[in-house]
Amino acid sequence: MDIAKELLEGSRLALSRAITAIENEYPEANDIMKELYPHTGHAYVLGITGPPGAGKSTLTDKIARAYRKAGKTVGIIAVDPTSPFTGGAILGDRIRMNELTLDEGVFIRSMGTRGSLGGLSHKTADAVKAMDAFGKDIIIVETVGVGQSEVDIVKAADTTMVILIPGMGDDIQAIKAGILEIGDLFVINKSDLDGADKLVREINMMLDLDAGSMMQARTATEEAIANQFHHLNVTKHEEAAPGYWRPPVHKVVAMQNEGIEELIGLAKKHHAFIEENGELHRRRTRRARDEMLDILNARINAHIKGHIVDNGRLDGYVKSFQNHETDPYTVVADLLKEMLK
Amino acid sequence: MDIAKELLEGSRLALSRAITAIENEYPEANDIMKELYPHTGHAYVLGITGPPGAGKSTLTDKIARAYRKAGKTVGIIAVDPTSPFTGGAILGDRIRMNELTLDEGVFIRSMGTRGSLGGLSHKTADAVKAMDAFGKDIIIVETVGVGQSEVDIVKAADTTMVILIPGMGDDIQAIKAGILEIGDLFVINKSDLDGADKLVREINMMLDLDAGSMMQARTATEEAIANQFHHLNVTKHEEAAPGYWRPPVHKVVAMQNEGIEELIGLAKKHHAFIEENGELHRRRTRRARDEMLDILNARINAHIKGHIVDNGRLDGYVKSFQNHETDPYTVVADLLKEMLK
Repeated sequence: MDIAKELLEGSRLALSRAITAIENEYPEANDIMKELYPHTGHAYVLGITGPPGAGKSTLTDKIARAYRKAGKTVGIIAVDPTSPFTGGAILGDRIRMNELTLDEGVFIRSMGTRGSLGGLSHKTADAVKAMDAFGKDIIIVETVGVGQSEVDIVKAADTTMVILIPGMGDDIQAIKAGILEIGDLFVINKSDLDGADKLVREINMMLDLDAGSMMQARTATEEAIANQFHHLNVTKHEEAAPGYWRPPVHKVVAMQNEGIEELIGLAKKHHAFIEENGELHRRRTRRARDEMLDILNARINAHIKGHIVDNGRLDGYVKSFQNHETDPYTVVADLLKEMLK
Repeated sequence: MDIAKELLEGSRLALSRAITAIENEYPEANDIMKELYPHTGHAYVLGITGPPGAGKSTLTDKIARAYRKAGKTVGIIAVDPTSPFTGGAILGDRIRMNELTLDEGVFIRSMGTRGSLGGLSHKTADAVKAMDAFGKDIIIVETVGVGQSEVDIVKAADTTMVILIPGMGDDIQAIKAGILEIGDLFVINKSDLDGADKLVREINMMLDLDAGSMMQARTATEEAIANQFHHLNVTKHEEAAPGYWRPPVHKVVAMQNEGIEELIGLAKKHHAFIEENGELHRRRTRRARDEMLDILNARINAHIKGHIVDNGRLDGYVKSFQNHETDPYTVVADLLKEMLK
């Protein structure tokens, strides 16, 4: 089966196999991605993140239905960057989506860590590209946001929605500080609960507090994201985005489908805004740079693996460190001479 | 000033400068670490992690005092992997420790992201080594645990304490799932509050639920950590640890200094246990392997930066991807031929 060719011809089975190849790092994944790459760049990517229990999968479900009603095809990638322990939860969430899976216009896929945390954001990005090449109009990447994972979603999404619910206690305050910088839209779910208006006020206040320092922080975060990629400081903001997008804070009750149409209206507004001011192009350019470096790094790591790991040389080095015969800095200097032209 | 030499002679100023060099990635950091490396391996490293608001810095403070009373010297590294936005909080926490900073036997240092998330765990590990070479008996690495950061602390610590408090709401349940696997000791702080006994029962239940699957998960997590390092599957568990350490759940009221001596007793017990069964050696060997690969990767990344980033070649590639003239997989294949022997 020529997976890439059949995927491009519209085979759902081929799309599924392509993502399996990506997820499990099968050798053919590289060739598949190479063939798909020229056919990407058409889909609009929505990121949905927030703390556990905020109702992300229900919201994703409702948003997908709304887009379907508007005639758009939808791909959903549900990413669980947490431990194997929570594997059950995501399965439960996905079962709720069963009705959607009967819709040919929707393709749903869960992705977990499968023992390789570090590659997850890269694999998610490749799965997005596979769905993009397949022809999905809207791709929703949904992830449990408890730290680093929100940062990863920013990299894959054109528009990022942060979902929060009332009454999560004080600790949410601290999480919010990090989350505030990555949201293009803030969604208060379960807004029929006590404390919803208070939460809306709080977030609005934090957003208004200092729009200047917020923009600065946003840039700092984006720099951090870029730096994090292989420690290479590759992202330079040559020009500041003209105009400032003040993230709206929008109340929904996802279970009751309340506020969803308006939310999609806000997402479209954000899309138009960043298309207009060039930010969409900048985000996608940054993503392409990061991906290119990511692929290069993966291949070099494979080379290192063959060169010093699989043959036991690394074990020998570690023994000699422990015996204080040499140190890693000396060994690395020698290895670089040996490996690089 | 020969920083490494003076550090080894006991200069606190030199230690401070060494960590500044590590944190800011000054060129001399590499040479300093090379000189310090042979003098490391004596300190015992304690990791303290938990959600925001759990009272980590107060606990760290009390633990440090208790070790001082027992005649041990202490180094404290407070790591804040969250956004620049929370920079204020950690400063506030550190001010509370002022009394400790007057004690010559204690060295306290905060480390933030400084625009480079990815390098933080590596920098923390180097700071630990600097304090180790300086002669600290106990090094406490304290970090806000909201996701990936706990995993990072596991890598640097010999014994990891997870600190939780009652009444953090339902969302803590989900965080706990990930946190459960990394704790060698569980500390319930503010245990005079309502719900403390319930939390102790819950955690004990989760720990007892299935010791078998827990051990399996722990191994899976460790594999994940190893894999995460440059996507290299370098860690093989040749032998299972004989005996199983059932993490104790211990109540304290850190502010009142209640339960601290007993907690230190438990830490010592864990130390003895993992020393006895070889797990300490395995953890440190794994750490040395990860560090070696980390250093190699950093140097190769510097090479890539000079080779294709700084000179603008990367920008050109990205443009040609966007024009669909080529794809990153083709470019990477060409680059590997160009760069590697």
